[in-house]
Amino acid sequence: MNPFNDEYFMKQALVEARAAAAEGEVPVGAVVVCNNQIIARAHNQTERLNDPTAHAEMLAITAAVSVLGAKYLTGCSLYVTVEPCIMCAGAIGWAQLSTIVYGASDEKRGYQEYAPKAFHPKAIVKKGVMEKECAEEMQKFFRQRR
Amino acid sequence: MNPFNDEYFMKQALVEARAAAAEGEVPVGAVVVCNNQIIARAHNQTERLNDPTAHAEMLAITAAVSVLGAKYLTGCSLYVTVEPCIMCAGAIGWAQLSTIVYGASDEKRGYQEYAPKAFHPKAIVKKGVMEKECAEEMQKFFRQRR
Repeated sequence: MNPFNDEYFMKQALVEARAAAAEGEVPVGAVVVCNNQIIARAHNQTERLNDPTAHAEMLAITAAVSVLGAKYLTGCSLYVTVEPCIMCAGAIGWAQLSTIVYGASDEKRGYQEYAPKAFHPKAIVKKGVMEKECAEEMQKFFRQRR
Repeated sequence: MNPFNDEYFMKQALVEARAAAAEGEVPVGAVVVCNNQIIARAHNQTERLNDPTAHAEMLAITAAVSVLGAKYLTGCSLYVTVEPCIMCAGAIGWAQLSTIVYGASDEKRGYQEYAPKAFHPKAIVKKGVMEKECAEEMQKFFRQRR
């Protein structure tokens, strides 16, 4: 039995999402995995950095290419708690990530509605991994803000 | 006669594009304009920063929100020499830029093909401003690489 499965890595992305919530950020977390190892982890920091581009996925991708010293993340997987937006989906495409795993869907801002062909054509997409937990983080956050 | 017209600002974006070319970067340049003033300027730095997300528009947006201390760039215009990609179009949408002016179209990677609804629904889009000059920078760059 391999303990390093999709749930394992999504749990790590959830740790990041909860760190975001604790900082008053929209709770989205992401990790980049290469050969079963987490090489980068990040959470949304749009408030802290006052930067609408500082989404979890963007920060994780920038960190991951820096770690690898490579231009592309071919062979790597991105785990993210919420379906990527157009911007992040575009970045995922440029980085040539091979696998994208996300938890909760985002019907309002998710890439599937707006840019369904954003990823590399051979990329594998898995959705709904720990969907309930990922969605709950978002719901809890927005409930508290209302 | 207003000297600060679209051509004026696109020329400034072209200055950035040429700076990119001189550094061996794909020559795309961008400026963000607020009340007829350039508040941020940037060129593509994907090679230098070894970061596939370091497009001219991303860097210009991050710089512009930092200058204004605002979360959004409502009321501002982005001038960019080449049609934004999906990622940058998504960032433009998040930043709520009011006007997007671009020079050359990018049929292969441009947002219009992949994410036509990326911008704020009320955003004004002007294309083809100094198109020839903007396209020439790209053609020259890729010709030299072949």
